[in-house]
Amino acid sequence: MPTYASMDKAALNEEYQKLSAAYEEYKARGLSLNMARGKPGAEQLSLSNDMLNVITPETAFKTEDNPDVRNYGGLDGIIEAKRLFADILGVKPENIFVGGNSSLNLMFDTIACLMELGAGAEPWNKQGTIKFLCPSPGYDRHFGVTEYFGIEMIAVPMTAEGPDMDVVEKLVSEDASIKGIWCVPKYSNPQGITYSDETVRRFAALRPAAKDFRIIWDNAYVIHDITDTPDSLLNIFDELKKNGNEDLVFEFCSTSKITFPGAGIAAIAASENNLKLLSKRYNFQTIGYDKLNMLRHVLYFKNLEGVLAHMQKHRAILEPRFELVVNMLESELKESGVAKWTKPNGGYFVSVDVTEGTAKRVVALCKEAGVVLTGAGATYPYGKDPKDSNIRVAPTYPPIEELQIAMEVFCISAKLAAAEKLLNA
Amino acid sequence: MPTYASMDKAALNEEYQKLSAAYEEYKARGLSLNMARGKPGAEQLSLSNDMLNVITPETAFKTEDNPDVRNYGGLDGIIEAKRLFADILGVKPENIFVGGNSSLNLMFDTIACLMELGAGAEPWNKQGTIKFLCPSPGYDRHFGVTEYFGIEMIAVPMTAEGPDMDVVEKLVSEDASIKGIWCVPKYSNPQGITYSDETVRRFAALRPAAKDFRIIWDNAYVIHDITDTPDSLLNIFDELKKNGNEDLVFEFCSTSKITFPGAGIAAIAASENNLKLLSKRYNFQTIGYDKLNMLRHVLYFKNLEGVLAHMQKHRAILEPRFELVVNMLESELKESGVAKWTKPNGGYFVSVDVTEGTAKRVVALCKEAGVVLTGAGATYPYGKDPKDSNIRVAPTYPPIEELQIAMEVFCISAKLAAAEKLLNA
Repeated sequence: MPTYASMDKAALNEEYQKLSAAYEEYKARGLSLNMARGKPGAEQLSLSNDMLNVITPETAFKTEDNPDVRNYGGLDGIIEAKRLFADILGVKPENIFVGGNSSLNLMFDTIACLMELGAGAEPWNKQGTIKFLCPSPGYDRHFGVTEYFGIEMIAVPMTAEGPDMDVVEKLVSEDASIKGIWCVPKYSNPQGITYSDETVRRFAALRPAAKDFRIIWDNAYVIHDITDTPDSLLNIFDELKKNGNEDLVFEFCSTSKITFPGAGIAAIAASENNLKLLSKRYNFQTIGYDKLNMLRHVLYFKNLEGVLAHMQKHRAILEPRFELVVNMLESELKESGVAKWTKPNGGYFVSVDVTEGTAKRVVALCKEAGVVLTGAGATYPYGKDPKDSNIRVAPTYPPIEELQIAMEVFCISAKLAAAEKLLNA
Repeated sequence: MPTYASMDKAALNEEYQKLSAAYEEYKARGLSLNMARGKPGAEQLSLSNDMLNVITPETAFKTEDNPDVRNYGGLDGIIEAKRLFADILGVKPENIFVGGNSSLNLMFDTIACLMELGAGAEPWNKQGTIKFLCPSPGYDRHFGVTEYFGIEMIAVPMTAEGPDMDVVEKLVSEDASIKGIWCVPKYSNPQGITYSDETVRRFAALRPAAKDFRIIWDNAYVIHDITDTPDSLLNIFDELKKNGNEDLVFEFCSTSKITFPGAGIAAIAASENNLKLLSKRYNFQTIGYDKLNMLRHVLYFKNLEGVLAHMQKHRAILEPRFELVVNMLESELKESGVAKWTKPNGGYFVSVDVTEGTAKRVVALCKEAGVVLTGAGATYPYGKDPKDSNIRVAPTYPPIEELQIAMEVFCISAKLAAAEKLLNA
């Protein structure tokens, strides 16, 4: 079959009629399927159920640096949990702060801290208009945090190696009102791109005009590999040290997609200076986070090896799903030339660029047929995809037989919208 | 024995020599005791150990309003936990938001929300100098939050019925830059005073000059009775309703001193309008709090009766401690007339007013002898007690035999400092 773009009107019209008929058949089934959010499925959640009973009547509540984890105290987390995150991220335990159940919350609080206290300069909220760079497509909740705080967002294009560093370097060196950038350096949300060594090195060597510029390094998928050929990410803190630039980065990580999304533990890795800055706020904000849940994680995993073995179980569940999605895209959309997509080695998403100007229509068609996707545009600042092309597909939550059907609907919708557009051109 | 104030110098000097000798004996023992913070003791913590195993392999993770508490979602908490807090506070479940492990954190975030978004008027952080009323003596961490956000603090005297309402009414009706007040309405920190019905009614009927004025009603000790004659607090929301004033109050509560201080659950009770306001921030701040820990609490307690039965176990541990402290004060300090104190029916503290101008000296003497108390002045805004008189005694944490010794040191120190002062006058 030729690509849709190369078809003549009659042939395309015939194809359109076929697609419409197929689409109506799915619609008539009254489906209710969801590929919207990066939520683990039920089978994944059950992998960690044994963690819930790892604290027994015999458990000692005293840890190496805490007299009783059930009580108040220990603002920055127990040392055993710091060590676990330090090993996951390749940093030292003294550079780790362990918080509550949400790394998003830690990121939000970090931005709030910079707004209120600043980073060696005036508080961000006293500097008038300030800006953040937003590699796009990116994570909608990052953009939401920036927008909440009234920080202006500048989209930066993504390349196969990560954010376009020529653009990043130029912008941050010229404009001192640019105070930060959102990064998901491994298996980026939504494209599943891992930043190349050169990209990481260029980030670590940045010399921003704003002395209070900070990189938010959201390493959400640091050990979330799903194939035999996992990506490898350069350790940003090793590179920062070479540049005397350790204060440039706040790194985030959590067990939300390792144990339980609602009841994991989250952490920050940062320089001594940056941890000191954050503590100026945390000292007033709370007496400390849930150390019993930290203990639960530590007792359950024991060490990094334990965590990595656990991730293999997730992989066993996730790999077939990602294969299904990519195979469906290959078999259903390749010939027609109406879309491009990524084939990630890990993370939680497959990013699909449908025909320009049709993403909203595809999402609407899917919705009409009972398949909920992330809103079109959500992967761009202010929810505005300039090309109306990017759609984030989240294959993890639905049971695999539902995923198959949801993808059938998705592929038909992508083709239908493309044909419509060409016919109306 | 006559009071110190009525002794002649020779008699007082003789007394001083005796006290000094006794003090030196304690000092020589190299004690290391702590009555500084309102921390439950080890025996109290163990009361809730069974909660840690209440989730079993057979537990269903689906609750009435949540498909799986292990996963993301459910920003404001599970309905079962809302009901439990609603019953504790005497409000409706739809007026409850259940958060993480710290009500202090919820209060901090609420102030942050009002700073950033305001309450129907300009955001608080865009209004120049704003002020908070701080009934004093009060809770140092409340004052810390206000100070962190650069909110000016005005001390308001406490009476036996709660904050001096003549002062409160006058100030809030005259000054629109006064935006709020900190209240611990039951068994106040540190005095253990419960607001009288009239005080609660006057709070509920307040007509502040600032339309965006809010009362922070920290009901930390709502069911924390320790005697046969518990205090009773009028339900503020019932009174607010009578005045059409439901948006005036944010109420806070937690299980920190019911189950585990480090791993409880915390809640906000508020009007529909106020919950809507908070959600404008929470929607960006997090995907939700630890619902497994909410489930743990709900399964363990089942209902309000379960919680109240549990509180009786706390009482059995705490009552003898409070009796010991008050009896020591009676027997050691009454005759000399060097101090006054409260005898609370609940809460976590005994408040002692030592001879004016000697609180810092008493705390220092205790410290020198190995007994750590809350810093003198901590119970006042900016850490400044104008009379240098109030000391917060926290009897819950040390084992009871240590508490006895700590109180002996405290009483000798209080007398020694008073005698010193009189001799140097």
